[in-house]
Amino acid sequence: MTLSLDQAGQQAWDWLEDAARFSETRNVEKEGVTRRCATPEHRALLDQLAAWMKGLGMHVRMDNGANLIGRYPSSQDDARTLLLGSHQDTVPNGGKYDGMMGVILPLALISYLHENAIDLPFHIDVVAFSDEEGTRFSSTLLGSKVLAGTFEPGMLEARDGQGVTLGKALADFGCDIERIDADRYLPDDVIAFIETHIEQGPQLEQAGLAVGVVSAITGIERHEVTVKGMAGHAGTVPMHMRQDALVGAAEVIMLVDRLCKDTDELVGVVGKIENAPNGVNVIPQTTTLSIELRSPDDSLRRQARAQLFSQINTSLEALNLGFDHCQTYEQPAAHCSKRLIDTMHSALQDARIEPRVLFSGAGHDALAMADLCDIGMLFVRCRGGISHHPDEAIKLEDLSAAIEVLTNTCQRLAQHHHTS
Amino acid sequence: MTLSLDQAGQQAWDWLEDAARFSETRNVEKEGVTRRCATPEHRALLDQLAAWMKGLGMHVRMDNGANLIGRYPSSQDDARTLLLGSHQDTVPNGGKYDGMMGVILPLALISYLHENAIDLPFHIDVVAFSDEEGTRFSSTLLGSKVLAGTFEPGMLEARDGQGVTLGKALADFGCDIERIDADRYLPDDVIAFIETHIEQGPQLEQAGLAVGVVSAITGIERHEVTVKGMAGHAGTVPMHMRQDALVGAAEVIMLVDRLCKDTDELVGVVGKIENAPNGVNVIPQTTTLSIELRSPDDSLRRQARAQLFSQINTSLEALNLGFDHCQTYEQPAAHCSKRLIDTMHSALQDARIEPRVLFSGAGHDALAMADLCDIGMLFVRCRGGISHHPDEAIKLEDLSAAIEVLTNTCQRLAQHHHTS
Repeated sequence: MTLSLDQAGQQAWDWLEDAARFSETRNVEKEGVTRRCATPEHRALLDQLAAWMKGLGMHVRMDNGANLIGRYPSSQDDARTLLLGSHQDTVPNGGKYDGMMGVILPLALISYLHENAIDLPFHIDVVAFSDEEGTRFSSTLLGSKVLAGTFEPGMLEARDGQGVTLGKALADFGCDIERIDADRYLPDDVIAFIETHIEQGPQLEQAGLAVGVVSAITGIERHEVTVKGMAGHAGTVPMHMRQDALVGAAEVIMLVDRLCKDTDELVGVVGKIENAPNGVNVIPQTTTLSIELRSPDDSLRRQARAQLFSQINTSLEALNLGFDHCQTYEQPAAHCSKRLIDTMHSALQDARIEPRVLFSGAGHDALAMADLCDIGMLFVRCRGGISHHPDEAIKLEDLSAAIEVLTNTCQRLAQHHHTS
Repeated sequence: MTLSLDQAGQQAWDWLEDAARFSETRNVEKEGVTRRCATPEHRALLDQLAAWMKGLGMHVRMDNGANLIGRYPSSQDDARTLLLGSHQDTVPNGGKYDGMMGVILPLALISYLHENAIDLPFHIDVVAFSDEEGTRFSSTLLGSKVLAGTFEPGMLEARDGQGVTLGKALADFGCDIERIDADRYLPDDVIAFIETHIEQGPQLEQAGLAVGVVSAITGIERHEVTVKGMAGHAGTVPMHMRQDALVGAAEVIMLVDRLCKDTDELVGVVGKIENAPNGVNVIPQTTTLSIELRSPDDSLRRQARAQLFSQINTSLEALNLGFDHCQTYEQPAAHCSKRLIDTMHSALQDARIEPRVLFSGAGHDALAMADLCDIGMLFVRCRGGISHHPDEAIKLEDLSAAIEVLTNTCQRLAQHHHTS
């Protein structure tokens, strides 16, 4: 008996519903899913995943970074490995799909390959990364850094809210933290890493498309700007003599918004603002703002930054205000491999889906995996672009479409493998 | 031996230095003055003021609102009363002059009248109002409301930080709180109330003038506006689909600032802002702002408000944002009497000081006294427009000038009295 793609989609749907039960919350529909690294919920989920994997003929192991890895082996002895997967953890009160869908879809693919007895010229390793969100230890991309060989042991000292270190939590979870470094994959052994993930944005929904191909994972920079004015009595200082820090901050907010609206492939936000003394009848003295810029094009982002700070300088000077500025974060963009983009593009056409290429504005495990190998990403439409929220939602038919595209991608990679 | 105006200025200077010692702070130069209503510091100050007043031949009493009143009596039996004074209390870590200078300058005037044996056709009552700032009980203008007959007994239930009610504090201070209402002055007995106060703004300093005449005490209105957007991932929502509440708030801040800068006799500020969720990588969902408008012209202020909210409505609609709005406060302007403005104007010319008329952007005891009688105010230059701060500063020569103007004003009122 062979499995159809529709059946594989339903299988994925059911597995996702099952997996959502492993949560610190009681009512998943209302409170969403909370599953943090190296907790009883993580353990219970891995036990369930391992059972499903074994049922598909996979060889299952947990590495010393608490990543669960199931291998669907090729019959060829010297086969290299295609890595698929995403993270098992969630933000607090997150959704059922962010992360977990990228573990389950590859399992549905394997189910399809297994039932149809399809043998590929490469192994497929499906990974449930231990920790991407960093909810428990602020240890973003922990699992994927272990596989890519970029995990920094200093991170083991990070503590959770109860003061437990990451090192202790992993050891208690059954990991040998001395051997984490040995869990890295070797570049020569790996063909690529492909991650499937909900879009977390509204573009596919707006275009009426089930899935899309990711071109790059955005680069990010963050700044803290403190506008420095002069406090004063809000009734007695004439308008033309005021040095109102919040008026300066408003200019900065407008400049960021205008620049990003006027520039393709650049988004930005002032998300955070703190004003002092923040009284209804006092002229603001200092206002501190965060500025975040994101772009898949690093040089465009850096040019935009220069332009922005030049504008900020001019505007604040005209308002007789000073400012302090420090850059607090910078993460370059990670580009998906042209070969994988092209392959997935064709795989979409094979499935009679209009091939849409879009960039990811959010970070993903693929970001860390880019240090190891070529990366590719497939986005799946999500309702209203909502993520990190109990209302996260996808469609059953989109799971089937994604499995079809993953299958086509594997078959095209296999063809390429044979002919190369 | 007669007292010169220069000597009277020096006397006022020394008294102000002495009075500043009655403070909860240890180092007045560094920490400023903290003196709250019905405290040991208030008691000690009143004892000192009473001693000075008695030395000037004044009759001294404390009323049941803890106001200290010293009378320099006229020799005429049927004389009416000219009220002079200001408040004794301070904000926490305030200056030496806000309030207290308006008590001491009239005493220096009395000293001059007394030493020169000048008899006037009216009594002069010098009042040290118990509580204007409301630092202890949030009981703004307490003392002046008692004299004006507008004190509301419900206010006696107000509590300080330790849970002590105003009623209990006044009773412990020696007041008969049942008889507060009887302490009101009768309009027929009062000629006017004249308050001297530091400007709390920079206009006299900029014009190089020691003193100026106040035309009106500004009206004030305050609003709370909540801009309502939609939270979202700061990387994945395209710019044109964002509903960023903080961008809307920035528009509101700019509109308030622009309108006030473009309108004479209108000042305004957005002093307070709260943003949610206020994360560096989250599109702001709701931003709450305070808006304050002040003008000596109530109809101008109300027109400006209508114009402002029409602009806010248009701007936020264009940004696809909603907003909630409520007005939280409105205090109409109080106009100084034209007769007193003219008299003080002439008194300035008598003293060879260029007569500058300006409005008060801050509230004062005169605001409450306007319910009883004609009010007049004389502003004294202060350094940098600074008030409510240990750095509050004035010049000795400006005290002499203010005493001269007060003297001239009294003499002109006496002449008018004789000829009317």
